[in-house]
Amino acid sequence: MAEKTVLRCQHVATMAEGAPPYGLIEDAAIVLSGDRIDWVGSWQDPLAQQAGPVIDYRDRLITPGLIDPHTHVVFGGNRAVEFEMRLNGASYADIAGAGGGILSTVAATRAASQQELLDTALPRVDALIAEAVTCIEIKSGYGLEPEAELRMLRVARQIPQLRPVRVVTSFLGAHAVPPEYTGRADAYIDTVCIPTLRAAHAEGLVDAVDGFCEGIAFDTAQVARVFDAARDLGLPVKLHAEQLSNLGGARLAASYGALSADHVEYVDAAGVAAMAEAGTTAVLLPGAFYTLRETQAPPIDLFRKAGVSMALATDCNPGSSPLTSLLLTMNMGCTLFGMTPAEALAGVTRNAARALGLTDAGTIAPGQRADLAVWDVSHPAELAYRIGFNPLHARIFGGEA
Amino acid sequence: MAEKTVLRCQHVATMAEGAPPYGLIEDAAIVLSGDRIDWVGSWQDPLAQQAGPVIDYRDRLITPGLIDPHTHVVFGGNRAVEFEMRLNGASYADIAGAGGGILSTVAATRAASQQELLDTALPRVDALIAEAVTCIEIKSGYGLEPEAELRMLRVARQIPQLRPVRVVTSFLGAHAVPPEYTGRADAYIDTVCIPTLRAAHAEGLVDAVDGFCEGIAFDTAQVARVFDAARDLGLPVKLHAEQLSNLGGARLAASYGALSADHVEYVDAAGVAAMAEAGTTAVLLPGAFYTLRETQAPPIDLFRKAGVSMALATDCNPGSSPLTSLLLTMNMGCTLFGMTPAEALAGVTRNAARALGLTDAGTIAPGQRADLAVWDVSHPAELAYRIGFNPLHARIFGGEA
Ligand SMILES: [Zn+2]
Ligand SMILES: [Zn+2]
Repeated sequence: MAEKTVLRCQHVATMAEGAPPYGLIEDAAIVLSGDRIDWVGSWQDPLAQQAGPVIDYRDRLITPGLIDPHTHVVFGGNRAVEFEMRLNGASYADIAGAGGGILSTVAATRAASQQELLDTALPRVDALIAEAVTCIEIKSGYGLEPEAELRMLRVARQIPQLRPVRVVTSFLGAHAVPPEYTGRADAYIDTVCIPTLRAAHAEGLVDAVDGFCEGIAFDTAQVARVFDAARDLGLPVKLHAEQLSNLGGARLAASYGALSADHVEYVDAAGVAAMAEAGTTAVLLPGAFYTLRETQAPPIDLFRKAGVSMALATDCNPGSSPLTSLLLTMNMGCTLFGMTPAEALAGVTRNAARALGLTDAGTIAPGQRADLAVWDVSHPAELAYRIGFNPLHARIFGGEA
Repeated sequence: MAEKTVLRCQHVATMAEGAPPYGLIEDAAIVLSGDRIDWVGSWQDPLAQQAGPVIDYRDRLITPGLIDPHTHVVFGGNRAVEFEMRLNGASYADIAGAGGGILSTVAATRAASQQELLDTALPRVDALIAEAVTCIEIKSGYGLEPEAELRMLRVARQIPQLRPVRVVTSFLGAHAVPPEYTGRADAYIDTVCIPTLRAAHAEGLVDAVDGFCEGIAFDTAQVARVFDAARDLGLPVKLHAEQLSNLGGARLAASYGALSADHVEYVDAAGVAAMAEAGTTAVLLPGAFYTLRETQAPPIDLFRKAGVSMALATDCNPGSSPLTSLLLTMNMGCTLFGMTPAEALAGVTRNAARALGLTDAGTIAPGQRADLAVWDVSHPAELAYRIGFNPLHARIFGGEA
């Protein structure tokens, strides 16, 4: 039997559903057993005080470890020069002419070795870890050819061997049409994307299948073919949907029982209803909204009324969201989208876990993984309130501080 | 004669005016002598290689240490609960009724001891220092009674004794009308604010005098009386002006030869012309613009055309800008205000120094203080491009790493 440890803390936000706001327990205790949570409740309960040695975190706050459910942290190059060109007045055509845009990241990613991709991803992962992120979703989608897509996913699988973090992968071959298939998106889907998905799955690299449904990417029929292939392989799906326009991507995703529909600024009431019906989580990405200076926020009130769970993610990527702070993402969710601080925290814990199909993370409850964050704050609203400040005191991953 | 040290680095952004963008020197050397910069130029120059022992920072970038020219980092309490109330739908009247708003910070600041104010300010200062900030402006303005105003400024003076950072103070007695003077702003200015300014100056606590010129604070006639008192004491002035409306504050400030006019979203062409004529720097505060969801950006193009220098600052304060990242402020200056990355970097170096009246900081040039930042980036545009990422490799303060 594993030795038990007791964490004592003034404030514990269990993030349990249906509980008081944040699932707050005051003068609380959490009993850990190995890499699991054994018990949580009042410190006054005899169960707490007799379980084992006590670590007293005093007047701090413990929350579940944070979960970033949508990132593209593995990529080659960066787009700082393009950012600078744009602010100096260059048009999108100028930038494309100078080799910019997503295809510049595709070229840099294809040119990078697995080691180079790993070396450049790790500082971004470390920035997330420094804010108590204990689980990160990572997508492929800048290779767009078999070897480069597999390489990105192999890097994602290497990361948890090198850092104390859990990684969940998504195959995103349907992210953009590569230059060699310009004007032949269908051919790319059928002869490259789907076969590469099969190969990646055979190598154990794929936890879920994603796509980008937008005028500048793929239409619903093309995405549906990828999702059919995912279904054949028994893999769950998710979708970048309704970011810049409404193509019905959220409804399509929901019809496949998708884990999540992501971005969804332009989703309509029918899309929201379909998501609610299917239990599809809305993964909101305010970093891209901010960077692109978008004006249409996702329909938070519709999600609330329909009971669609909302998650928040960095969308860390070199173009539309070069963001590596999940705390700042929480602030953006409140400031830019009008979410409450409690919704923001649920969005990077309980609902982020749901968006990834994880049932053992995102709340503090018996049987859950012991992934926890200890914060130097006295109220959980402070986590979303501050901007560019990291009040983390300690991070516990699988029961280890 | 002080021992000299040579820093070698692939990229040095001297931020010298009129030089190539960023004042960039490739394969560069900086010679330090004690706490000063002795020489900067090409590593190939014999002067560089013979000056003394070499520290090789390889392919990194060196910039001047960053300067945050407008903060309110000393205050009591925080406003997270108010932030949460607002996002849960509370009106400003509800919040004021619950004791919220700036007066809640005044109450908390008055109630705090000098040690408490120091203890709560230091983590905010440390967050700035972690991003290579080497100089911070700190204002009073939450005391609004003699002892509490003096206490705030004494805390500001203590900080450089405890941390490797330079602090420049501003007396901001004219920040808000305290509750005991409601409806009697003139009496507050004449019987509290100005006498307290004189007392603070007599104690050596004041480097400059600031005010808040706005419908919700003080009018130009009231600010002018404070500025007259500053002039009598030989102190430079600056002003929170044209943040929410145009009261002519920038013109007033310029007429006193102000170091800076700050916020200035609503400044008009006449105000810009007056600032240009007086050499008054525009200190832009995108954190407050972001937090308050403002839509009118400051007139960047007018400033450019008129030759008004632009600085950027966090405006760190518990209400409208609980922001402690100057790198994020640079990104916001670009993303929200359309500044270029070069303008953003000048805004937290050369022009931030100018806004504080400092002639020995903000550029890398002979005779300047050896306050430097060594970054793990290869192009200076990366500093403004990334969001929520700190690529700092080393920070040098007064020649000491
Ligand atoms: Zn994405
Ligand atoms: Zn201010």
